[in-house]
Amino acid sequence: MRICRFRRSEQRERARYGVIEGETVFPFREGGPFASRDVDRSQGIPLSEVQLLAPCQPSKIIGVGRNYRDHALEMGHDVPSEPLIFLKPPSAVIGPHEAIRLPALSERVDYEGELVAVIGRRASQISEEESALDYVLGYTCGNDVTARDLQKRDVQFTRAKGFDTFAPLGPVIVTDLDPHNLTIETRVNGQVKQHARTNQLAFSIEALLRYISQVMTLLPGDVIYTGTPAGVGPLKPGDVVDVEIEGIGVLRNHVT
Amino acid sequence: MRICRFRRSEQRERARYGVIEGETVFPFREGGPFASRDVDRSQGIPLSEVQLLAPCQPSKIIGVGRNYRDHALEMGHDVPSEPLIFLKPPSAVIGPHEAIRLPALSERVDYEGELVAVIGRRASQISEEESALDYVLGYTCGNDVTARDLQKRDVQFTRAKGFDTFAPLGPVIVTDLDPHNLTIETRVNGQVKQHARTNQLAFSIEALLRYISQVMTLLPGDVIYTGTPAGVGPLKPGDVVDVEIEGIGVLRNHVT
Repeated sequence: MRICRFRRSEQRERARYGVIEGETVFPFREGGPFASRDVDRSQGIPLSEVQLLAPCQPSKIIGVGRNYRDHALEMGHDVPSEPLIFLKPPSAVIGPHEAIRLPALSERVDYEGELVAVIGRRASQISEEESALDYVLGYTCGNDVTARDLQKRDVQFTRAKGFDTFAPLGPVIVTDLDPHNLTIETRVNGQVKQHARTNQLAFSIEALLRYISQVMTLLPGDVIYTGTPAGVGPLKPGDVVDVEIEGIGVLRNHVT
Repeated sequence: MRICRFRRSEQRERARYGVIEGETVFPFREGGPFASRDVDRSQGIPLSEVQLLAPCQPSKIIGVGRNYRDHALEMGHDVPSEPLIFLKPPSAVIGPHEAIRLPALSERVDYEGELVAVIGRRASQISEEESALDYVLGYTCGNDVTARDLQKRDVQFTRAKGFDTFAPLGPVIVTDLDPHNLTIETRVNGQVKQHARTNQLAFSIEALLRYISQVMTLLPGDVIYTGTPAGVGPLKPGDVVDVEIEGIGVLRNHVT
């Protein structure tokens, strides 16, 4: 199932959740994909007539640092012994084709292509016996945009990773996907910058879900950015950055 | 104006915003205090019949570290040259008289009594010419509960400050208050542990609002925990912790 949030391009209607099948979007009934998987098949809308929005509205965004060994090494670190987690504010979320705005306060803003897990149901203190992936609705692409200079200066990642537009998400949430066997690639102006497989994740999605849910209750629509592979680098105005994940699609944003 | 969020004690009705006058709560009209200050005076409810909840539902919680010199010194630091900001997840919020739960993962959980500013309207990139306090609806008491051992171990504060129940807020939001001339006191089982005046804040509320709003758009109901004075210390099961701020009242929580 390919789940999106959308609005009709020509109308100022409210955003709705839908399922994309071929070139048609079928809206979810009230409550969206977190309430049930019932879609209204009487109301198909041509995909060409909708604008895709960020595919969910997280109450919180958890990021994971240094979760691919080759990226940890390029940053001068090893993989940590426990997951390194941080928060990005929901005000940073943008959808496909929205602009990443470079803030005046930073001289070096990097892309970080990432697989993102979207929580499907409330999760607190997931035990070893439970199947942690049952709490996941599906997966989407994310770009953990980071002001590298501020990240080094501030110690806390809050500012460096928290600017408005620094959390692109999309284009869709794909269910029924094996998250540990996907190709992930980031391109800037068509040039490949990051290319890896998600089986290189140091801490698996299950391990991350267990770790994070010991601390904070995860709610439907919350997202976990699972870490970026090697090859991070700077963005400049006019760049077009694509994060493509096998089985999901391409998250494209431009830079202003 | 003393603004609260409440629910009638005996009914499973939805939470509403209200204004407390004497021993009566008058509910706000649709939209709450962020839409207008109109309350429904035909519908007074005795204060004794309501349960006070956390007085707002923040989309994000920004904390400020080392913002009182004497606290920075007791932690072995000086006041930083720029505000040290971090995020707490909204899932950590509890209201007055709810329990702070000590997590099994930590052996040392501290209280941190703080003045909390509640955002009243959308704020992005507040300029030097603007009156930053115009973006504030009012002020409440907060307890920036912190797992001190994990804070030291993790470097990032996310886990140490992010556990469920680690963001007590309340009991009310008070408008028309000078935030820089208030006594703040934290007591554990009636014993005074922190006692300071908010004129000792290293970075003023205005400075914090300007700094944070350069990074992230602040939304109505978002909160800023403005930092804790000296005297932090551990909590144990059974403790009762009060954060009292002049002109606001007492935020009381117990520990389990």
